[in-house]
Amino acid sequence: MNRKDYQITAWCRRLMGEHVQKGAFCIDATMGNGNDTEYLCTLAGEEGCVLAFDIQQKALEHTRNRLEKSLDFCNYELILDSHSRMEQYAGPESADCIVFNLGYLPGGDHTVATKPAATIQALEQSLTLLKRGGLMSVCIYSGGDSGYEEKETVLKWLKGLDSRKYLVLVTQYYNRPNDPPIPAVVIKL
Amino acid sequence: MNRKDYQITAWCRRLMGEHVQKGAFCIDATMGNGNDTEYLCTLAGEEGCVLAFDIQQKALEHTRNRLEKSLDFCNYELILDSHSRMEQYAGPESADCIVFNLGYLPGGDHTVATKPAATIQALEQSLTLLKRGGLMSVCIYSGGDSGYEEKETVLKWLKGLDSRKYLVLVTQYYNRPNDPPIPAVVIKL
Repeated sequence: MNRKDYQITAWCRRLMGEHVQKGAFCIDATMGNGNDTEYLCTLAGEEGCVLAFDIQQKALEHTRNRLEKSLDFCNYELILDSHSRMEQYAGPESADCIVFNLGYLPGGDHTVATKPAATIQALEQSLTLLKRGGLMSVCIYSGGDSGYEEKETVLKWLKGLDSRKYLVLVTQYYNRPNDPPIPAVVIKL
Repeated sequence: MNRKDYQITAWCRRLMGEHVQKGAFCIDATMGNGNDTEYLCTLAGEEGCVLAFDIQQKALEHTRNRLEKSLDFCNYELILDSHSRMEQYAGPESADCIVFNLGYLPGGDHTVATKPAATIQALEQSLTLLKRGGLMSVCIYSGGDSGYEEKETVLKWLKGLDSRKYLVLVTQYYNRPNDPPIPAVVIKL
């Protein structure tokens, strides 16, 4: 294991990689540049299915191009809608894995950031949509243009989850300056 | 991956297991019941070497019995001394992995707990003893009889490590009551 394995993306991906089997049903709640969508599609394989949400048309176009190039099957559905409406698209206890990247899109337009109210609504729905044993990965980017409100709101929400029903792990890059991202994991017990 | 994989011991062991190769040199700074000593011995293999420290004679006896039963080789040295003197036994930049379990011994005598001053001294030495790329696992047990002083002291120390020289990850069981253990990891860059 080297330093790179401890970078935030690698960290979350290791967890997803260990968790998502072929045939899995996954949701990318924050499609953005399609990074995680592509990864989930690969993990779930042809017999699996991935739903990915974004409210920006260009995110869908970019991701569709990307997936058409990288996959030789189509196991995904790209949805132009808010993740706060994801329960319209998936049934209760159906999802093996749900992924959130909160805050601004790294390298993207920081003025288009997820917003606390819609985020909490989407997270609440995710708890319902997750299978027992299912995993939700929530990576929180904060600071800079997008501030700290969402981070504080989401951490408070995570802290309040019933420990008999959900295992919540929050990892911090403990000695790193400049608001490093915070990866959190929720397992439905 | 299931709930058990997220238990504190399993979590630390996964990291050690990924990190420690055959032939590695490891230190168990807090031998106790020899749990981690045995695990490190197995990982490092016959060509590796494990030093384990404890100030209680009965810890050494118990661990020796345990290792003689479970291993068909002897790649360990059990040392009756404080971990705050470990630099007397190992050279700078020599260790691939150093393991600390701080606070009381789970299931053991809570009045015999590690103490903040000696602990910080041992942690400081560990930074010197670690190879570049080496990993230090520090699991902090707190609350109950042993209080919170050591936890606060160690977390503050971790937070203060130079982020250009050390990567520090601290994971919390974020929604669990009753002072859950806190696993921390330090990688020397």
